[in-house]
Amino acid sequence: MSQSTREIKKIVLAYSGGLDTSIIIPWLQERYNGAEIIGVCTNVGQDEDWDAMEQKALASGASKLHVLDVRQEFAEDFLWPMLRAGAIYEGKYLLGTSIARPLQAAKQVEIALEEGADAVAHGCTGKGNDQVRFELTYKALAPHLEIIAPWRTWNITSREQAIEYAQQHNIPIGNISKKNIYSRDWNIWHMSHEGGELENTWESPRDEMFILSKSPKEAPDQETELVLDFEKGFPTGINGEKMEPLKMLDYLNRIGGENGIGRADIVETRLVGMKSRGVYETPAGTILHKALRELEMITMDFETLGMKNQLALKYAEQVYAGKWFTHFRESMDAYMETSMQYATGSVRVVLYKGSVTVVGRKSPYSLYLEDLASFGESAYDHSDATGFINLYGLATGVQAMVHERKLPNKGPAREMRAMAGFHEK
Amino acid sequence: MSQSTREIKKIVLAYSGGLDTSIIIPWLQERYNGAEIIGVCTNVGQDEDWDAMEQKALASGASKLHVLDVRQEFAEDFLWPMLRAGAIYEGKYLLGTSIARPLQAAKQVEIALEEGADAVAHGCTGKGNDQVRFELTYKALAPHLEIIAPWRTWNITSREQAIEYAQQHNIPIGNISKKNIYSRDWNIWHMSHEGGELENTWESPRDEMFILSKSPKEAPDQETELVLDFEKGFPTGINGEKMEPLKMLDYLNRIGGENGIGRADIVETRLVGMKSRGVYETPAGTILHKALRELEMITMDFETLGMKNQLALKYAEQVYAGKWFTHFRESMDAYMETSMQYATGSVRVVLYKGSVTVVGRKSPYSLYLEDLASFGESAYDHSDATGFINLYGLATGVQAMVHERKLPNKGPAREMRAMAGFHEK
Amino acid sequence: MSQSTREIKKIVLAYSGGLDTSIIIPWLQERYNGAEIIGVCTNVGQDEDWDAMEQKALASGASKLHVLDVRQEFAEDFLWPMLRAGAIYEGKYLLGTSIARPLQAAKQVEIALEEGADAVAHGCTGKGNDQVRFELTYKALAPHLEIIAPWRTWNITSREQAIEYAQQHNIPIGNISKKNIYSRDWNIWHMSHEGGELENTWESPRDEMFILSKSPKEAPDQETELVLDFEKGFPTGINGEKMEPLKMLDYLNRIGGENGIGRADIVETRLVGMKSRGVYETPAGTILHKALRELEMITMDFETLGMKNQLALKYAEQVYAGKWFTHFRESMDAYMETSMQYATGSVRVVLYKGSVTVVGRKSPYSLYLEDLASFGESAYDHSDATGFINLYGLATGVQAMVHERKLPNKGPAREMRAMAGFHEK
Amino acid sequence: MSQSTREIKKIVLAYSGGLDTSIIIPWLQERYNGAEIIGVCTNVGQDEDWDAMEQKALASGASKLHVLDVRQEFAEDFLWPMLRAGAIYEGKYLLGTSIARPLQAAKQVEIALEEGADAVAHGCTGKGNDQVRFELTYKALAPHLEIIAPWRTWNITSREQAIEYAQQHNIPIGNISKKNIYSRDWNIWHMSHEGGELENTWESPRDEMFILSKSPKEAPDQETELVLDFEKGFPTGINGEKMEPLKMLDYLNRIGGENGIGRADIVETRLVGMKSRGVYETPAGTILHKALRELEMITMDFETLGMKNQLALKYAEQVYAGKWFTHFRESMDAYMETSMQYATGSVRVVLYKGSVTVVGRKSPYSLYLEDLASFGESAYDHSDATGFINLYGLATGVQAMVHERKLPNKGPAREMRAMAGFHEK
Repeated sequence: MSQSTREIKKIVLAYSGGLDTSIIIPWLQERYNGAEIIGVCTNVGQDEDWDAMEQKALASGASKLHVLDVRQEFAEDFLWPMLRAGAIYEGKYLLGTSIARPLQAAKQVEIALEEGADAVAHGCTGKGNDQVRFELTYKALAPHLEIIAPWRTWNITSREQAIEYAQQHNIPIGNISKKNIYSRDWNIWHMSHEGGELENTWESPRDEMFILSKSPKEAPDQETELVLDFEKGFPTGINGEKMEPLKMLDYLNRIGGENGIGRADIVETRLVGMKSRGVYETPAGTILHKALRELEMITMDFETLGMKNQLALKYAEQVYAGKWFTHFRESMDAYMETSMQYATGSVRVVLYKGSVTVVGRKSPYSLYLEDLASFGESAYDHSDATGFINLYGLATGVQAMVHERKLPNKGPAREMRAMAGFHEK
Repeated sequence: MSQSTREIKKIVLAYSGGLDTSIIIPWLQERYNGAEIIGVCTNVGQDEDWDAMEQKALASGASKLHVLDVRQEFAEDFLWPMLRAGAIYEGKYLLGTSIARPLQAAKQVEIALEEGADAVAHGCTGKGNDQVRFELTYKALAPHLEIIAPWRTWNITSREQAIEYAQQHNIPIGNISKKNIYSRDWNIWHMSHEGGELENTWESPRDEMFILSKSPKEAPDQETELVLDFEKGFPTGINGEKMEPLKMLDYLNRIGGENGIGRADIVETRLVGMKSRGVYETPAGTILHKALRELEMITMDFETLGMKNQLALKYAEQVYAGKWFTHFRESMDAYMETSMQYATGSVRVVLYKGSVTVVGRKSPYSLYLEDLASFGESAYDHSDATGFINLYGLATGVQAMVHERKLPNKGPAREMRAMAGFHEK
Repeated sequence: MSQSTREIKKIVLAYSGGLDTSIIIPWLQERYNGAEIIGVCTNVGQDEDWDAMEQKALASGASKLHVLDVRQEFAEDFLWPMLRAGAIYEGKYLLGTSIARPLQAAKQVEIALEEGADAVAHGCTGKGNDQVRFELTYKALAPHLEIIAPWRTWNITSREQAIEYAQQHNIPIGNISKKNIYSRDWNIWHMSHEGGELENTWESPRDEMFILSKSPKEAPDQETELVLDFEKGFPTGINGEKMEPLKMLDYLNRIGGENGIGRADIVETRLVGMKSRGVYETPAGTILHKALRELEMITMDFETLGMKNQLALKYAEQVYAGKWFTHFRESMDAYMETSMQYATGSVRVVLYKGSVTVVGRKSPYSLYLEDLASFGESAYDHSDATGFINLYGLATGVQAMVHERKLPNKGPAREMRAMAGFHEK
Repeated sequence: MSQSTREIKKIVLAYSGGLDTSIIIPWLQERYNGAEIIGVCTNVGQDEDWDAMEQKALASGASKLHVLDVRQEFAEDFLWPMLRAGAIYEGKYLLGTSIARPLQAAKQVEIALEEGADAVAHGCTGKGNDQVRFELTYKALAPHLEIIAPWRTWNITSREQAIEYAQQHNIPIGNISKKNIYSRDWNIWHMSHEGGELENTWESPRDEMFILSKSPKEAPDQETELVLDFEKGFPTGINGEKMEPLKMLDYLNRIGGENGIGRADIVETRLVGMKSRGVYETPAGTILHKALRELEMITMDFETLGMKNQLALKYAEQVYAGKWFTHFRESMDAYMETSMQYATGSVRVVLYKGSVTVVGRKSPYSLYLEDLASFGESAYDHSDATGFINLYGLATGVQAMVHERKLPNKGPAREMRAMAGFHEK
């Protein structure tokens, strides 16, 4: 599909401004006989000197740099649906990096098509997940484009070699010589950390590693209470006030971070098969997830929610793999949209020293009816339960008779234990 | 199966010592023409005046009372396998009451068979889950026994009427006239709370309701660190010291409770169809669950763990329903046992003001290999990733070509958004 | 919810024209002090003397009878979506009776609301599934209506008693005295058979029981070939000719039945917990299902189809239970609609003596690309496979090293067998 | 893991006797500087001239050839558990080739370890599934061995080039010049066919392609009836007579083949991502699967069977991928073993012109109780159904009230259709 041999004259590169992608520019020019290199940098909320970036790209040899602020699209069209779906990878990772890549790669493809480029390139290494996410998006949106992944191809295998290469090619590297312990990724949803002491799964992360969130120990001694409002599974406001997605994320990241909310330390399974350790800070996402899950529980029946939870596992796997622009993700979102049509209401949460606690929830579509659940009188007829249990338990009784699973008349608990399936250990 | 019409001469009652089951004794005697009533009370860790209990039962008209301390069996043969399975109901409930009922009912059946009784009786109401759990166990173990559920049958529909009935029949009710706001259940795994202000899902639980755990706000200002040891998915020790199940639960409940750990506030779906609000305190269980899940993540591959997680949802539903003595639960435990054969190792956890944070994990079977995951040199060949992505993404590329899903050469992000499936909202 | 005690003055009855529902009319009048009884009979394709039916209902005491031909709605809005979903219960039952009940009950509710009735009644027994399907639809569409199920209430427990009751009340019963061996249900999708020799699961059904289909042994000696056309998962034509749903079902039932297609003999699990034996004839449905599943396989990727197949199991359970007008079924149909948007194309099938064999399939959206799959040259790069397998198998290799699962240097196959998990049996 | 650079002196090759693996021998010797090549050929039931094979291998340059008859292990330890699990890939493929590869590769590894070899080699191409299955087994059992896959490496890309290479190296190729239209694989479970006219998915397979089965049109005009006996999910006898696995497979393949049983024509999804067309003949397997599934339905409750069916889908994916020696497959087999402990009994099947029809089933553990299911009197209390439906439908009724989903008092069916979710198409 991709290893064609046609001539490459124009390449659109996912440019980050860092050492890793800067040195790709001269390398591509050498490797592809002076091909034109166009950079694309998408702003998903990372902290960058946006003004200096164009200068840096041009100085590295790019013919131009497109800088695109995609934060609003990122929130509305990627983060909100993912949140609605309840997607969390391996029980803990809120997918902050994973969900950004398809958008970034799609923007890059858009530019490549506009510019009439022959190829797209990225600066991901051959061990990580991001290479998969970028390339699957390229394949999904423009399968005819050549894909170039220099970090899998060239001989540069260490940071030192990369710096040397940059110096040889007069690439401005700024204060880059300073050693970064951690590999990080940052956007409006989260910040990730890998490397350093994290590579020993028995060691705890150092306090100074964290950036978006205070340590719970340094968080305020007072609780912070919020009311979060949702419509059809999308967040719409705080404390009764409508709020735009970007503003809401900013607000919740700040207030959540101050309260030590949203840290996750996980040994996860990468797409390329190995386990790796990552630590994530996702303050706003953690608060929104917890609140929305609670709203689901009062507005959805057991079966619709049960299947939604199963789909959420698959949805998370798809996002983790960068399989966003796929028939499968779209099909799951159709389920999500319909199943969440009543997920409208408000949730009270309390933030306190690292914890988000849901303490109240209400909805015009709440399926919780106080008179049904309470001990008082209601339309509920207690005698219905007799018939219910008799039929609900009919198969159990039949099996008992058929399997003669009767308890012995005499005898110690050991026999019951054996029956229960927990034989002598 | 059960509504036979044979004569009932001897009834074994699940006796709790409270008003609810005390008044059943004279009622059964009246209803069944002087039948003999034998009480069974199983000690699963609730707080009772065990010495006074026999006296109370006899005074209420029972011919005898069997008091059985089943705490060790409860821990080893019920709690431990449930913990290993990772069973949590609707994302939050650690199943403390649910898991006790099958054991309690099985002991009652054991006594009924020993005593040659005709029927078993319980004091559960017609709205709750416990009636189902008791009766499904009766049906599973001794389907020939008659089942009597007075609270679904008689005319007593309120606490006041129950007290009046007790007084009329000279049943000792102690200080029972004092109004209990909450309906509670307590054992070595948890304490549950229902009723009172909880019946309004928008209201937060009052601080004074909680019994096993301090409020996070009143928990110590210092972190508490523990190392938990597991073998094949069962907890075996703390801080390197072997510990028996009962002692470990006691220790973790105490230390967890002091740190405000293990509170869960949930609107759950009952077996009889309605939503209800419950608040649970499960300090030890919360710590053990979090730690064990983390050990799984370094010792199990993605697929084995993914299926285990799916089975865990079903396992939780089975436990919630009281379907313990079933072919399905046994079959799932066979999967659990085999899949957890390498879940041996240690987990470092930090307790602090309501949070359990896992900060380290290790195992002789750890699948995390530092040299594979890290950025340094290893046996991993980066160029393998090219082939991997090409084939992993082959179907995506084929679909793109077949569906002509190409991005437009020109045009606003809107079109990509449309493609992504998020049309104008 | 339903056992209210308000006065019942007008009852809308699901009327079939048979003995079972005819005797309900006078019984309801007696029981509800002369309440007005209005019949509703929905034509879903069963074989009835429609002209005589009104006369019969009035003669039995009904004030009027609504006869509604709902066949087109049945096909378009119930059968087609169920077919698209791929819903089959317990691997074999194509849900012919199950899918009709919600429509029939909905029409009954519609009339009840138009007529201002207080209650709805049906003639289903207390052992079967249909009572559940009717009543769940009533509850879903008009939960305020009283539900009356005489066969669970009165003392009539046998056919003989029913006939006697009819004679006492001058209900015309026609040639009803003739003993029916089987209990049957018929509509445009299928015919079902229960009872008679089928109650012995070891006995085969008698040839003379079948009505819609010839025995394979008596089917033509020549193959019949058809091309079935679909659009987005719905059948649209045969042999290139557009065809309306009712005409298509009629045609395929006839030609399928002649070729002995569509018989299914199943021991199924009823909603009320017991196993029961049923035999079904569904010629058109069997052909359409087989063809559409094959079209899916060339137009859907593995993951989208895999999840669709899982949802299909749940969809079938919902239809079997009569849970059509539910949030869950609607949510699943959203997935079905999106996932099947490319299920457009044609399928060649051969009918021969009881078998449907798919021998060809094509689609403008076919994901089968001959040059990729064949042994000839293509864009596929064989060397990609090396990298793919290395990473696809990375976790397997890591586990092997960690678990030291190496084969012994010497030794019999027995040790490998032990390793494979099949120890001495 | 594998691309080590150590010297390769001894290579164990999976040798088939055909052109594809014969030319590998001299190629390996050239490529690895005269390394010793040892062949392993495993007899899984394919039709070969076993006597001539050693001669051929030695003539091609191998130092020796191990021929191993593994048919009994194949049946007992691989086919039987896979059958018990109910594993079928993408609804149709009975996995005949897939299941053989792990055994064949394991035997090859066993020899490699015995012989002290440095590497294992196979003759699979880079487009197919078998390369994955072989190599995953190597990695699972002896991850330290080098893996060599010449067909992904060398320049030979067509049959013609292979023949030329053989002639240049004096490899005996027998009557191999005769063009084979189809690519085939044969063992005691099945025969597969790929290529030729099958590469056009719209074309039907030619009658002369089939080898194990007669065309249904040429099958006997009389039905053949069999009784199949099972114990705990494994086949044990026919018509009441105990039979060894190999004899049973042979018998059923013959009698099934004569009756035109077991042909499957499928467009499947390969591991490397593309769709491909295959046609399979699996007479015995088809009969055994159908019979065993029916026995499950009378001996397993709905939930245990429902989960088994879900696991079966995953089990099939694992087998298809060659992931046999894995923790996941072993864990699933633990579920299978426990869940099938009552799958003991007999099934009556009728074979006729391409169809297998189950007409009877019985078991000492049958959960079908005639008096419960039939219309006669039984222990079943019809009035239980009222309570059951009221609680089973409680959530539906609550949702209806909350969502106000009431049918309109007046109005056409269109509105109900809208409500049902099938809006104007």
